[in-house]
Amino acid sequence: MEGASGLPKGFATGTASGTFVSVEAPKLGKLPIKGTIIQLTNGPTNNWAAVYTSNRFPGAPVIVGRKRLAAGGPLNALVINNKVSNVCSGGDGVADSELVCESVARALNLNEGGGASTVLPSSTGVIGWRLPAKELASDVVPKAVENLDDTSGLDAATAIMTTDRWPKLRSKTLKNGARIVGIAKGAGMIEPNMATMLSYIMTDATIPKARMQQMLSSIANVSYNSMSVDGDESTSDTVVIVGSNHFDDTDETEFEEALTEICKGLAADIVRNGEGTGHVMRVEISNFPGSNLEARRLGRHIVNGPLFKCAVSGNDPNTGRLAGSVGAYMGQYNKDGAVEKMTLSLGGRTIFKDGKFVLEGDDVERELSEHMAGAQYDEHSDYPPHQKFVEIGVDFGSGTGSGAATVLGSDLTGEYVVVNADYRS
Amino acid sequence: MEGASGLPKGFATGTASGTFVSVEAPKLGKLPIKGTIIQLTNGPTNNWAAVYTSNRFPGAPVIVGRKRLAAGGPLNALVINNKVSNVCSGGDGVADSELVCESVARALNLNEGGGASTVLPSSTGVIGWRLPAKELASDVVPKAVENLDDTSGLDAATAIMTTDRWPKLRSKTLKNGARIVGIAKGAGMIEPNMATMLSYIMTDATIPKARMQQMLSSIANVSYNSMSVDGDESTSDTVVIVGSNHFDDTDETEFEEALTEICKGLAADIVRNGEGTGHVMRVEISNFPGSNLEARRLGRHIVNGPLFKCAVSGNDPNTGRLAGSVGAYMGQYNKDGAVEKMTLSLGGRTIFKDGKFVLEGDDVERELSEHMAGAQYDEHSDYPPHQKFVEIGVDFGSGTGSGAATVLGSDLTGEYVVVNADYRS
Repeated sequence: MEGASGLPKGFATGTASGTFVSVEAPKLGKLPIKGTIIQLTNGPTNNWAAVYTSNRFPGAPVIVGRKRLAAGGPLNALVINNKVSNVCSGGDGVADSELVCESVARALNLNEGGGASTVLPSSTGVIGWRLPAKELASDVVPKAVENLDDTSGLDAATAIMTTDRWPKLRSKTLKNGARIVGIAKGAGMIEPNMATMLSYIMTDATIPKARMQQMLSSIANVSYNSMSVDGDESTSDTVVIVGSNHFDDTDETEFEEALTEICKGLAADIVRNGEGTGHVMRVEISNFPGSNLEARRLGRHIVNGPLFKCAVSGNDPNTGRLAGSVGAYMGQYNKDGAVEKMTLSLGGRTIFKDGKFVLEGDDVERELSEHMAGAQYDEHSDYPPHQKFVEIGVDFGSGTGSGAATVLGSDLTGEYVVVNADYRS
Repeated sequence: MEGASGLPKGFATGTASGTFVSVEAPKLGKLPIKGTIIQLTNGPTNNWAAVYTSNRFPGAPVIVGRKRLAAGGPLNALVINNKVSNVCSGGDGVADSELVCESVARALNLNEGGGASTVLPSSTGVIGWRLPAKELASDVVPKAVENLDDTSGLDAATAIMTTDRWPKLRSKTLKNGARIVGIAKGAGMIEPNMATMLSYIMTDATIPKARMQQMLSSIANVSYNSMSVDGDESTSDTVVIVGSNHFDDTDETEFEEALTEICKGLAADIVRNGEGTGHVMRVEISNFPGSNLEARRLGRHIVNGPLFKCAVSGNDPNTGRLAGSVGAYMGQYNKDGAVEKMTLSLGGRTIFKDGKFVLEGDDVERELSEHMAGAQYDEHSDYPPHQKFVEIGVDFGSGTGSGAATVLGSDLTGEYVVVNADYRS
């Protein structure tokens, strides 16, 4: 264990690289692929939980993972690869994914304790290509197992990156000494078809499986499901939490608060990491006339609107676009919700109330613009990156409703377009 | 009457310019403003209909227009201004809008036949600023009335433009000689806060008011409501049809078909006119497991997804992003709809079926990319602009459902971002 990135007790991670030739794009020649293994070093655990994408065309690893989750069996390891996401390919993606799990079981000698069914797979990368399962199984997995190490989580956080700007790792140590360490790869979208968000949380606290699932599902809604870079859930989005059960005196309330903080932090890191992201917006919705889910949808609508995203990228406090976006959403999806008492704020300053814009003098405009500029990311000088947000408030007014949400999103820059318009090969 | 742009009998249009100083932005100095009047030259008509934005923060002219529509009274004229949209401003926007209508009534001597209540107002421009109603009433409106002319609709089509690339006018002459002429201003979004779509349709056919409203509401769904440039309905979107009742032998079926063609054409023109638009996408959804409205929402989701929009701008046939977008929408909003029989096509070629991507060789990739490049707009050489589309098919398979929609949208280019990120002043 070493500082903030030190792994919880009972975990080791190992990574390795290999190459493969894609069946679908043989002309590209040998392509690099990375494999990462997260091992429970003291044997299998029943205490794990997962939340998967709601996308209707899920990748094969998601299908396999859902099967493991439904079966309720124990886990010994997780295996993650980049480069090929194993989604809707021409071959038998589930069989390919199982083949990789079998190789992990073999390398870790798990075959007497459930074998491949205790290994949880994930893939991220190009959609539609066949997973190079043979290469992963014969070459990458054995090397990754050789490299297993129980010190830092940073290697794994780095290995699962695709085009993320920085590795994403957040951790907390609880009062009883138990650790929670979360890593994530982001939804940078920079590499076409690599829209995947993956996050793995390791803990040595003992939290019963059912409680763990309940916590993760609920926390996922206010963290991973409350951010948007590109508007869509990918075909592979996956969040997994695994416990190695070393601290059975863990306070569940303290654990849940720490887990919430870690997941919210990783979600913010994912948005901030998107290549081409200049600003991270944080929209706080309160007193919404509807459910939290609907409030979250309004938040996603705001942060996904291209006009408003462009205004934010230029530090333009374009309050008209913000009010227009809220009005359009409410007109389409919440016709009867009261909007008469709504106030909008930017950087803490009220910009709209009683159905009208608050008159903006030049000084106020400058102040709002400065708030936005202060939250801007400068690729050339900002390291370590700051954690500032463009703060947007949408309050429907006391008594209007009880829905609430906090949603994060990114601006829209020319860099984003250039990178995402590039031809894939 | 002169050729394709000739006005129907009983109509005249006039335009004029003026200047004003904005209360909210006095430092900008004198700003130009344009006024356009559409007059019914043979007296008032009861046969008119309108469809307004569903945005919950509508502009004052929309509030006034809805009041006129509900009252069911006759119309003598329409008055439209650019530069200030009269939305949610600090003053009394409705009184400002009525003041302009009164000036039109005065200039046209309508005061014995209902006066201002027979004049329908529209405004487009900056949100949140006060309408310069006095300047419009005392200066612009009288000049526009002096300029009234019953020949071409092109002057009015040009005067209502903001940053549209070209004026938008479509017309048809029916078998009995009746004319339908539609003009529109687009949702180019280039000028911040000018998201407004306005369209006015003039006809000398006699169509009873109730039938006219029914046709317009239904046709608006498959034309203006089936396109998206920026994802949102603006605070001012307005479509009006007015009849001067010269041809009472008009075949209603023929009329409805012609009106549909005109409105669909104007909707396509609006998307194509958006500054920064390189391609227009046309998404055809069929056998959708839900209503036409839901099918339309899926279509709008596809054409509004920034990742797919970027791919289209780069002529990248990124089939993964398309399938990912459909899967994400269905997972969020149509969990139980069957997706198993869905096929996707691009440029008429099947790219996805039976839950898998159809293997794409390099030749197919090139063919798909060429289809996209063929529909690209070249600002420097394409005049008159072509009318080609990037054709996308989403067919849920025979027997899955009866929902259908055709939705138009634009790609996402660096030019769009640059223009929309610029500070307003």
